[in-house]
Amino acid sequence: MRCEVVAIGTELLLGQIIDTNSSWLGEQLALNGIDSHLQIKVGDNIERIVTTLRSSLERAEAIICCGGLGPTQDDITREAIAKVMGTTLQSNKHIENKIRKMFESRGRSMPQNNLRQALVPVGATAIEDQPGTAPGLICPIDDKVIYAVPGVPYELKQMIQSTILSDIVRRSGRKNVIGSRVIKTWGHSESKLAEMLSQRIEYLNESKEVTLAFLASGIEGLKVRITARAQNSQKLEVLLKEEESVIRGILGDCIFGIDDETMESIIVDILKRLKLTVAIAELTSAGVASARLSNADPEGSIFLGGIVPNSEISRMAILGLDQDSIGTEESATHLAQKVKSLFSADIGLSITGTHDQTGSSAKGETYLGIAYGKTNLIEKVLLPGDKARIGQFSVISLLNALRLQLCKTVS
Amino acid sequence: MRCEVVAIGTELLLGQIIDTNSSWLGEQLALNGIDSHLQIKVGDNIERIVTTLRSSLERAEAIICCGGLGPTQDDITREAIAKVMGTTLQSNKHIENKIRKMFESRGRSMPQNNLRQALVPVGATAIEDQPGTAPGLICPIDDKVIYAVPGVPYELKQMIQSTILSDIVRRSGRKNVIGSRVIKTWGHSESKLAEMLSQRIEYLNESKEVTLAFLASGIEGLKVRITARAQNSQKLEVLLKEEESVIRGILGDCIFGIDDETMESIIVDILKRLKLTVAIAELTSAGVASARLSNADPEGSIFLGGIVPNSEISRMAILGLDQDSIGTEESATHLAQKVKSLFSADIGLSITGTHDQTGSSAKGETYLGIAYGKTNLIEKVLLPGDKARIGQFSVISLLNALRLQLCKTVS
Repeated sequence: MRCEVVAIGTELLLGQIIDTNSSWLGEQLALNGIDSHLQIKVGDNIERIVTTLRSSLERAEAIICCGGLGPTQDDITREAIAKVMGTTLQSNKHIENKIRKMFESRGRSMPQNNLRQALVPVGATAIEDQPGTAPGLICPIDDKVIYAVPGVPYELKQMIQSTILSDIVRRSGRKNVIGSRVIKTWGHSESKLAEMLSQRIEYLNESKEVTLAFLASGIEGLKVRITARAQNSQKLEVLLKEEESVIRGILGDCIFGIDDETMESIIVDILKRLKLTVAIAELTSAGVASARLSNADPEGSIFLGGIVPNSEISRMAILGLDQDSIGTEESATHLAQKVKSLFSADIGLSITGTHDQTGSSAKGETYLGIAYGKTNLIEKVLLPGDKARIGQFSVISLLNALRLQLCKTVS
Repeated sequence: MRCEVVAIGTELLLGQIIDTNSSWLGEQLALNGIDSHLQIKVGDNIERIVTTLRSSLERAEAIICCGGLGPTQDDITREAIAKVMGTTLQSNKHIENKIRKMFESRGRSMPQNNLRQALVPVGATAIEDQPGTAPGLICPIDDKVIYAVPGVPYELKQMIQSTILSDIVRRSGRKNVIGSRVIKTWGHSESKLAEMLSQRIEYLNESKEVTLAFLASGIEGLKVRITARAQNSQKLEVLLKEEESVIRGILGDCIFGIDDETMESIIVDILKRLKLTVAIAELTSAGVASARLSNADPEGSIFLGGIVPNSEISRMAILGLDQDSIGTEESATHLAQKVKSLFSADIGLSITGTHDQTGSSAKGETYLGIAYGKTNLIEKVLLPGDKARIGQFSVISLLNALRLQLCKTVS
């Protein structure tokens, strides 16, 4: 089964909007065992859309069109598909009522233009699940199919997950289920991970039930994705769980989480279990750690707060740091202890360094401090990139150092 | 002149990397008066790349291929283009030396694989400007052309700007120059801006020398892009400057900057002129304002610092805020004054609200406080979205309120 993706909209070609829908669709199709060999962006031009759809249908059994289902004259995906189907558009009363009711429920009157969204090519089916005013369409053409979904990402995602993926898998005749789990790591390079997992990958290559892939995710570390196929979802879950456990055995504590877990959500979880609170002084990461920890702990029961002293005066006045000691190991310890007492936290954290006075991309030494009870831990790291990138790297490095330290405490 | 963009790489189809190159290229082409009607993503498969390039050449006079110029066996853009040209690959000694020298300068020995990157289709030219190990290629095919550039964004951008845009404009036979300026606004809806500018747009439609377009940029407000064509760059600059001045006259102080200026860079500029310093207490924006202001003022001469008290205890202990008054107008004033004195700043800012205890998407009231001399300014805003979005909206709303207040001071 091959499925091409056609993203429709002149604004995509002009670079006013980046087409993230196709990438997400490509990932979903791959996870469901459907090949997507070509993905195309085309503007709001009826002839070019029709030509694009016709040539896609020569190569693939299915097309997902995103965008061009809005209420304005520019939105011509419906017309283009009807032309490819060799049919006309007909108004669907059921959808018309749905759209009317959406406007009523918001206390607004419906512009006449929105009735265009109730037009459906004869022979096509509207997708029942309709989060916005634009309905999705399933348009059969002989033994092939064109799906049309709105370009608004959350509407698109909802329709794909509730209806289209299962429809396309059914059409593909595939019987087994496919699923995946992402294992998140911090601290090793891709080649090091590949080396550690090479025997396992060789072993898995023979069974073909389970495969592993490496995904880079920039400043958030490296991910290992487990993909498995099984006869049903119970067996799938067993395969994923077993493989996760094998990989945990091989990679050890460089694994910090799976799937939607983040470094900060893990830290907050561990601290909750240990009933410990934390505060931070950020000199060179400019509030990034405070933002991440606040989002992971909106109640403020674990992360008590952060301070971002951007000037010499505030470093001296609030944190008692004298100018000469900035960007030294001692200052990282001092800051961690000081912020711990200022916020009455169990753990004080600090990020400081020698590059904090400039916005340049100078390779700066960064000191990460952890003050916990009588323990003072300092890590010195040399980080590449510009100030913003160094800041983000410092934050995840510090949180990871704290995670490893806390894991020792727990065990 | 029509130019299609072909982005090459299986990782793009699988959604492991989002193709931002095509969007950027589409924008650059449009700004240079070149039509881009179709943009295609294709995987690392020689037959499919060749077929894609051949059918693109039937529709367009030029193609820009991005990606697939790396050193590994997967990187087959060179081979595919040679096939389309009906020729073979030949090693280019000049490029070979360049690559060798790059490795030498980093003190590393060159893997043999990298020699693949010195292969050039017979009849093609390598682009002299080569920021990485992959050279760009200009490959003429009869009176048409295929350009190949690396997928690494900064390498791609450099080659496009130094060489390819001027080459493609020359081939298009266009004599005049095109340029643009982006005007950034905050505070009005798109329909309001369109209404304010409608007469001007009608007037411009007749001359066709200058056009205006609206660009949404989410939480950063709305942009109006001026695009102009002129015989030379001096005349272009005059047109852009005149139009900017007309639009400033119509839109007034909702304009906060142009092109690369940001709300925070503007604030730092104004404060530098006025010789004033600022500090902030962020209760519901979790460090976002501190991060933005620190980045705009890396020396710390204007933005003295921020505090992110995430817990009740720290709000009381450090900012003297009692629990009952959180999320009221009075607390916003208190926080702004307190942080002003804590950091010894001329201006104190605060962001607080009623939704700060939860991570939910409840519509929270947000209070933005400014304390400056004896003036206390409080703005109450109702912001939509989740906590992160509300935080970002609060920050730009507060900075804009400060900007408007300071403009009054200056004038």
